[in-house]
Amino acid sequence: MSVLKKKAVILLSGGMDSATVLAYAKEQGYDCHALSFRYGQRHRSELDAASRLAKQMYARHEIIDLDLSRFGGSALTDDAIDVPEYEARSDQSVIPVTYVPARNTVFLSVALAWAEVLGAHDIFIGVNAVDYSGYPDCRPEFIQAFENMANLATRDAVEGDIKLTIHTPLIDLSKAEIIQLGHKLGVDYSQTITCYQADQSGRACGHCDACALRKQGFENAGIKDNTRYAVPD
Amino acid sequence: MSVLKKKAVILLSGGMDSATVLAYAKEQGYDCHALSFRYGQRHRSELDAASRLAKQMYARHEIIDLDLSRFGGSALTDDAIDVPEYEARSDQSVIPVTYVPARNTVFLSVALAWAEVLGAHDIFIGVNAVDYSGYPDCRPEFIQAFENMANLATRDAVEGDIKLTIHTPLIDLSKAEIIQLGHKLGVDYSQTITCYQADQSGRACGHCDACALRKQGFENAGIKDNTRYAVPD
Repeated sequence: MSVLKKKAVILLSGGMDSATVLAYAKEQGYDCHALSFRYGQRHRSELDAASRLAKQMYARHEIIDLDLSRFGGSALTDDAIDVPEYEARSDQSVIPVTYVPARNTVFLSVALAWAEVLGAHDIFIGVNAVDYSGYPDCRPEFIQAFENMANLATRDAVEGDIKLTIHTPLIDLSKAEIIQLGHKLGVDYSQTITCYQADQSGRACGHCDACALRKQGFENAGIKDNTRYAVPD
Repeated sequence: MSVLKKKAVILLSGGMDSATVLAYAKEQGYDCHALSFRYGQRHRSELDAASRLAKQMYARHEIIDLDLSRFGGSALTDDAIDVPEYEARSDQSVIPVTYVPARNTVFLSVALAWAEVLGAHDIFIGVNAVDYSGYPDCRPEFIQAFENMANLATRDAVEGDIKLTIHTPLIDLSKAEIIQLGHKLGVDYSQTITCYQADQSGRACGHCDACALRKQGFENAGIKDNTRYAVPD
């Protein structure tokens, strides 16, 4: 007799954090529905990575078109703003230009729509408050406020009393701890893309904020970095 | 010397409620940015109406593609579910099949993204708690929770202390009062579409939930109903 698994929606960017979250949700026994967005990011190799990762982990995968670049305002979607080289920020109150306005709010909202249709009460997102790069929508207080709102937004909120939970299994982990967790769960990090300006075949630049944090993460975790770089170190 | 107007984002469906809200925001002195969605609704005449209304009221207008019909689950986006004829609901705790899962959450989130890029701190939405048809995401407690979340989600929440406000000028008005307000503000209701199954040229069916509420609204307001019906009454 097969046991019906609980469904969950997992936000999957194709980066290492969300890949780790997908592996984590799968290991927790959820029937995983991975959700990605074509939101105007400069490179599309990230979405190819998301598709490969979903397939590897037997998750249903949907890619939704939502062109946030129409609004501009971020180096990740706006060609007029340069992606900066990495420099350690002393002032965490200044938000970097790579921030995409309200991105996690939008992504979580669409995840909520899918969850409601699926009858899922669990949404997973790979936000992280340690290496969070100063993004407001990666903070625990934001996630809590979103969960509160979501529990007033849906059919279940009116018709039933089933609580929707936003899971953030990485929120208190360092990048090194995330890598150690994913390594234990069998995540193939060579398939993930973290770089802000990866080339078309998915090779990382090695110099942007995200690359620097990723490199340091592997080093601190004591795990071999199998990232594909455009210019090998 | 010209005075710089405060910017606002207004969710504009092409229906009578959002048209009234746009006129209201304009009258309040805002520089209006109207936002519509191609979200998989069955008929597109609604978006044509939104464009005409934005033009009439000198608002900048963006239409964002976001295909919520991919998820299914609503009579408004899913051909497999019939739009019901109107019948007065005695049980307001049962949500009608025309409800689109998490729609207002998603729309408000994208409005938030645009507002953040524009530097706008005001978002207007035409939700209504009187004739709200049992939709969970039209209730005041939902709007309040969304506003709380939005004030933790954005750059301003971290870098400044400017508060974002979700305006719901229609929330406590009856349909008749909305029509009276719009009439006073000069809204051309013949240009608006409320019907769940309007034909391609934008003529209303006259029989669905939305048509019934609209008809009754004009009657109660004592204002001539200039709606274009497919089959004249």
